Amino acid sequence: MREIVMRPIGVVRGGRSDPIDDGWDRVSCQIVLDPAQFSAEATAGLADFSHVEVIYFFNRVPDDEIQKGARHPRGRKDWPKVGIFAQRGKGRPNRVGITACRILSVDGLKISVQSLDAIDGTPVLDIKPVMTGFLPHGTIREPDWAREIMKQYW
Amino acid sequence: MREIVMRPIGVVRGGRSDPIDDGWDRVSCQIVLDPAQFSAEATAGLADFSHVEVIYFFNRVPDDEIQKGARHPRGRKDWPKVGIFAQRGKGRPNRVGITACRILSVDGLKISVQSLDAIDGTPVLDIKPVMTGFLPHGTIREPDWAREIMKQYW
Repeated sequence: MREIVMRPIGVVRGGRSDPIDDGWDRVSCQIVLDPAQFSAEATAGLADFSHVEVIYFFNRVPDDEIQKGARHPRGRKDWPKVGIFAQRGKGRPNRVGITACRILSVDGLKISVQSLDAIDGTPVLDIKPVMTGFLPHGTIREPDWAREIMKQYW
Repeated sequence: MREIVMRPIGVVRGGRSDPIDDGWDRVSCQIVLDPAQFSAEATAGLADFSHVEVIYFFNRVPDDEIQKGARHPRGRKDWPKVGIFAQRGKGRPNRVGITACRILSVDGLKISVQSLDAIDGTPVLDIKPVMTGFLPHGTIREPDWAREIMKQYW
């Protein structure tokens, strides 16, 4: 399958400088779009949404930490060993992270957000507004470990 | 900002062969992971989730259809002109699509899903389980056009 080349649309500025597993709801930061590619038009109307989905790149994960098979989430042996596509850990093929976070303000190419779990300097690949019509349909089922892992996350 | 190279983890097989705006809930298809990269271990435990978030690449969108500024969603002049990052249309920088869809079954490298709005042959970049803890927090606010555009979508 052919390789795909992407160019970051911007970068995360502020917030945490080290990846920590928990407590992200206290963190606010800015997404700064690249002025070489975009003008303020690119974010027109974004402030009419309360939340934004941020697609970013885990640039600090080295090749040898990419998991292609199964592992215990966070190395927790008391949780089941599950495939990399059955968990959301950062050591994954293509290193893509996605998080829906609250918009605090939009000022041209600067978008201030709360609870984005990406650190200072993280390349951003895309931003999409959260629309209720795009939320998962029907009842969501998940295993117990998936609820436990999120207990302190925000 | 440095370019990022991704390798598709798999491809969409079946479903629609043409991009149509609406009626996606009736569509089911398979995500077939690349056997050169992965074994069945990669999806272990995925069937314990009801929904999966699929990150894919709009490979049929040509360069000259990529919008970097503002436009009317679907060309509808009765809706406001909004920035590309305030809408979810496919003609966007980096051509990334993200949809949460229902898992019908998981059989090794083949994941059958319902309501994935990607056509046959679409490269898949990542798959993440939908966890309730990762849904947007708090009340979601969105403009009227964002509700209207979704009326026939599923």
